[in-house]
Amino acid sequence: MTDAAASLIALDWGTTAQRAWLLDGDGGILATRRPELGLLPTTAGLDVRDADARARAYETAFWSACGEWVTAHPELPVLACGMVGSAQGWAEAGYLTAPAELRFGSGALTRVEHRGGAAHLVPGLRTPSQHGRPGDVIRGEETQIVGALEALGSPAEAVTLVLPGTHGKWVRVDGGKVVSFATAMSGELFGLLTTGGILARTAAGARRDDAAFARGLAADRSRGLSTELFGARPLVLDGLLDPASVPDYVSGVLIADEVGHLAPTVGAGPVVLCGTEDLCRRYAAALAAHDIVPTVLTEDVAARGLWRIALSTGLLGSSGRNGS
Amino acid sequence: MTDAAASLIALDWGTTAQRAWLLDGDGGILATRRPELGLLPTTAGLDVRDADARARAYETAFWSACGEWVTAHPELPVLACGMVGSAQGWAEAGYLTAPAELRFGSGALTRVEHRGGAAHLVPGLRTPSQHGRPGDVIRGEETQIVGALEALGSPAEAVTLVLPGTHGKWVRVDGGKVVSFATAMSGELFGLLTTGGILARTAAGARRDDAAFARGLAADRSRGLSTELFGARPLVLDGLLDPASVPDYVSGVLIADEVGHLAPTVGAGPVVLCGTEDLCRRYAAALAAHDIVPTVLTEDVAARGLWRIALSTGLLGSSGRNGS
Repeated sequence: MTDAAASLIALDWGTTAQRAWLLDGDGGILATRRPELGLLPTTAGLDVRDADARARAYETAFWSACGEWVTAHPELPVLACGMVGSAQGWAEAGYLTAPAELRFGSGALTRVEHRGGAAHLVPGLRTPSQHGRPGDVIRGEETQIVGALEALGSPAEAVTLVLPGTHGKWVRVDGGKVVSFATAMSGELFGLLTTGGILARTAAGARRDDAAFARGLAADRSRGLSTELFGARPLVLDGLLDPASVPDYVSGVLIADEVGHLAPTVGAGPVVLCGTEDLCRRYAAALAAHDIVPTVLTEDVAARGLWRIALSTGLLGSSGRNGS
Repeated sequence: MTDAAASLIALDWGTTAQRAWLLDGDGGILATRRPELGLLPTTAGLDVRDADARARAYETAFWSACGEWVTAHPELPVLACGMVGSAQGWAEAGYLTAPAELRFGSGALTRVEHRGGAAHLVPGLRTPSQHGRPGDVIRGEETQIVGALEALGSPAEAVTLVLPGTHGKWVRVDGGKVVSFATAMSGELFGLLTTGGILARTAAGARRDDAAFARGLAADRSRGLSTELFGARPLVLDGLLDPASVPDYVSGVLIADEVGHLAPTVGAGPVVLCGTEDLCRRYAAALAAHDIVPTVLTEDVAARGLWRIALSTGLLGSSGRNGS
């Protein structure tokens, strides 16, 4: 049994992982879990076009992550953001269209059933493709943005939020409104390159090596990412890079390329970094090379955002807590 | 039984695939095979530091590819180039160091044993890492270069060879000497992105779509490869790209980024493309955007290069054909 003051089960359910929180009556964190059942492992081997099969897989994954909490507190509402609300998710939860204020009112959430009751999904945020040029989509970071803006005191000034992850987001907010954003899939490239292919084979073991990360960060970018990434291999063959340090070198090359392209697009106002401690450290180092000193927020802003959305949608509120 | 004039078993044995040729007494192609047992599948699950286990795996893969030819012609020498001669290959076959003429004399080859006799491995080509800046390595393309230069009539002028593949090479040759080269791993990134991760999930089936390739090729590159790759997903979500066309779009984005960075580094003189018909078509389209019209050679120049090296090393020659 967890704290009797438990008030909300909140999940940030992304492409590769989940973070789940049990929140108290003020949105404070009572307990945290980090199950590994993101969208990709949850739907592995499924025909994602089969909505019923998908729903069963997500229900099982949800129960594996939060079943104990639901059993202990069957009356609690459940709110989830992230890829769980995508076309390959538990159910398609729709989108807001940017530019947009991130106001989620009653009716904004999409309800799905599980064996212990219901869960509610937060919509994403999109910019439409235009004239054949790709737009962009956000799933989960809209909730981090809600939490981050609250943590920043709802700034009226323009601010850039950098949210690194599997599909990292660079989000421009002005006057409380998301005006534009870009997605960089450096995190996914890192995962693919360090688990499959020649660099994964070149690496032997993996050991944190901040100096190797800094070397990757400083690598010449003029010949392009595809060429610079391969540089890890000759460095190892020439005895100049420890095979165990290949992942950190690759991380440096990827992040330097992302930040090198996107930092010049950042407009006036502060830059705010929000993510895991490790990723924030890496991106802060890359931003420093562009004379940007970011404000750093913890990734728990997602829990704060889920709390805010639970309140604004009426999932929690004066009508009591049986919001499911 | 194949043609009695068979004279050499020649293999280009790369990271992901093999091409094997049975050559006649003039180096003409009698038969071709395309087994899938490249370095990665051959060594999958192995501890690559275990040289004996590796040698057994390569012997088995070789026998699976060429055993019938060896059985039919037990006296034929066997010559192989590519990653088979790398530190993760059958045996480490060493390197020439660029700038270098690609002259392979007696003693240049590394001998390995198989159940039907011996095979010989061609050394690679390297530029050393200097001042912490990565050098580069070639395995297999040195042989393609030998064949391509012969096909071009051993040009005295400067020429740039573009050799697309898993690890594509841009090679500068001047006066018959390789002066520099760069490796772009666009082919490997394509394989990783279209078999794992969110773009592979976004794709449903795969159908050749030249228009989607052209759209990827024309995508704005200013925000960097990691951001532009993700663009395939919003295009699909917005109904503007057929899920089956995602691989061709991704191919266009990757090749445009590689060519966009490396085409400006090409010096004076002709540009020569050499690879599979499909890759040559794609790279020619990307080069055209930079006003470069390449000469296109078939990938069989590797067979020609192996033939030349078999002659120059004495594996074939006046001493007879029992060169093993």
